[in-house]
Amino acid sequence: MKNIYFTPGPSQLYPTAPKHIRDALKNNICSISHRSDAFKEIFKEAKDSIRQLLSIPSTHEIAFLSSSLEVMERTIQNLVKKKSFHVVDGAFSKKWYEMAINLGKQSSYITFKPSQLFNQLIIPKHTEIICITHNETSIGIMIPMEEIYRIKKKYSSIPLALDMVSSFPYPEINFNYIDIAFFSVQKGLGLPAGLSVLIVNNKLTDRSVGSYHSFKELFAKAESNQTPETPNILAIYLMAKVAGDILKRGIINIRKETEKKAKLLYDYFDNCSWAKPFIANKKYRSRTVMVIEVKNDAEHIANTLKEKGMIIGRGYGEYKNTHIRIANFPQHSIGMIKKLIINLRKIKLQS
Amino acid sequence: MKNIYFTPGPSQLYPTAPKHIRDALKNNICSISHRSDAFKEIFKEAKDSIRQLLSIPSTHEIAFLSSSLEVMERTIQNLVKKKSFHVVDGAFSKKWYEMAINLGKQSSYITFKPSQLFNQLIIPKHTEIICITHNETSIGIMIPMEEIYRIKKKYSSIPLALDMVSSFPYPEINFNYIDIAFFSVQKGLGLPAGLSVLIVNNKLTDRSVGSYHSFKELFAKAESNQTPETPNILAIYLMAKVAGDILKRGIINIRKETEKKAKLLYDYFDNCSWAKPFIANKKYRSRTVMVIEVKNDAEHIANTLKEKGMIIGRGYGEYKNTHIRIANFPQHSIGMIKKLIINLRKIKLQS
Repeated sequence: MKNIYFTPGPSQLYPTAPKHIRDALKNNICSISHRSDAFKEIFKEAKDSIRQLLSIPSTHEIAFLSSSLEVMERTIQNLVKKKSFHVVDGAFSKKWYEMAINLGKQSSYITFKPSQLFNQLIIPKHTEIICITHNETSIGIMIPMEEIYRIKKKYSSIPLALDMVSSFPYPEINFNYIDIAFFSVQKGLGLPAGLSVLIVNNKLTDRSVGSYHSFKELFAKAESNQTPETPNILAIYLMAKVAGDILKRGIINIRKETEKKAKLLYDYFDNCSWAKPFIANKKYRSRTVMVIEVKNDAEHIANTLKEKGMIIGRGYGEYKNTHIRIANFPQHSIGMIKKLIINLRKIKLQS
Repeated sequence: MKNIYFTPGPSQLYPTAPKHIRDALKNNICSISHRSDAFKEIFKEAKDSIRQLLSIPSTHEIAFLSSSLEVMERTIQNLVKKKSFHVVDGAFSKKWYEMAINLGKQSSYITFKPSQLFNQLIIPKHTEIICITHNETSIGIMIPMEEIYRIKKKYSSIPLALDMVSSFPYPEINFNYIDIAFFSVQKGLGLPAGLSVLIVNNKLTDRSVGSYHSFKELFAKAESNQTPETPNILAIYLMAKVAGDILKRGIINIRKETEKKAKLLYDYFDNCSWAKPFIANKKYRSRTVMVIEVKNDAEHIANTLKEKGMIIGRGYGEYKNTHIRIANFPQHSIGMIKKLIINLRKIKLQS
């Protein structure tokens, strides 16, 4: 049976992805040289589609790395001599902070709470970068973009880096306030894992700390539609194709549908006897990764849905048995979400 | 038309790779969680097959990174405080040295010449690692393993790292003399690019310099069949399957066939009026990436073969127009090599 994956990533493939993989095989995409014109065209197509999808202005450049953890590392490496500042809203933003510490930086963080607003935030002097995770895959918090912009308006000289790993392509980003953004293809693009997209203000792309993935080398190559290493060519090809498909569907439609599907799910869980959204404050609830408190029933719920061919995520880390996580990406149709809710209703009767 | 790729990597896919890709789609491999038992089994299968293929003893551990350039970087990062020493036999070994310099090390190198033997080699005091590229993809030199072991025998306390990126799985390695080895899947495994395999003596796997790919974190995860990041799951799956297929064919057979095919090609070029192997000394000629001097005809030769559906590599860097490069990996059958020679003979008539 073909399952439907509502897991937060890797997740369901975008419906056209298997066709593009078959086309790639037919057209020898996995054998072409990463220094060939054919590859450069694929790279350009991928870059152009991502640029169009997120309305990325010409002030910002795009490169591809192997994972979002790598992006977090390269961002700290290239932009921070001593101090980064982190808004920690869950396990992944915490990991970014810890990575800075492991890299020998004197970094600091605040713990973000949904009730808290950023207008009173004080950032330490000599901070070289502000790191924020837009959507915490671990607990289902999404920080409204306006609040993130407010920080940048107050601290306009400090580069602001946005982890949008699991929110892409939902948020409309105003790149006047965002210097760095990145996401992974196995989430909102519905692709096989193994690639991350990095967007950087070209004021920062000349930093050359480290080796083959120093910003300078990475972006010099990217400008000529190349990578320093032999990259995951298949993933770059698939990104070009699937981002193109999403563009055809219309990013505005995708965003509206994302909200509609999120509302269906939250409405259900807000009125559910055996579960409730982990984030009470609706303003801060993720639209792309819903985290639901379920007492100690996560395993039972996941297994029951699995029997119906629907795979959901378990809670992250300490919440493994008390949370379930449901992704709401462009590849998840309204029909799939409705089918999931029908089956969730049946669980209610069992418990 | 389906081309045959004799390019040094990315190259021809292993004949069973497309079937395994289709199976992966059928079995939802691209959607499963990298923390699931299903993934752990795939990871273990990949590790076990590689271990069996290269007869890797239990003294050495295996992990997967995103590219061989990344492996070069992590090796320097984790094992070198000040000094690495490099045997430079071409552009890729030079890149490894330059990477060490970019990482702020006081590294040194010697330029290897095919006539030169290692028994008089003097390595600087306080060298922390010796880096050798077994097979130089750029110019087609292959250093005999016995000569490499000789260095380790003389400097037994210094870790020896072997780049076997484009020679795997041809050399039989005695891991008593090799502390670190690595290769990329897009060459001798005939897989889509985007993964590198790192083998490290477990005396060295506790180093924890850097962040998410510090040896300590990488190998702690690898031990439990995991990766720190969301990895290229599809590539790990394909590696498990194709390495298994190669095992069934028999590694001894593969090695014999590699030599037979190399001999066919070198015999042809040694007696060719318009071309000759770039490395004159037969002992040092690569068996897996043949580099052939062709005056200024590289473009013409490559284009002529392309019309027949055969794609060969052009010269590397400064040799772009004066060399051609022909890969001889397990996915290149004797029939393919013979077909290539038949078409090469026709070129002879044209020139």
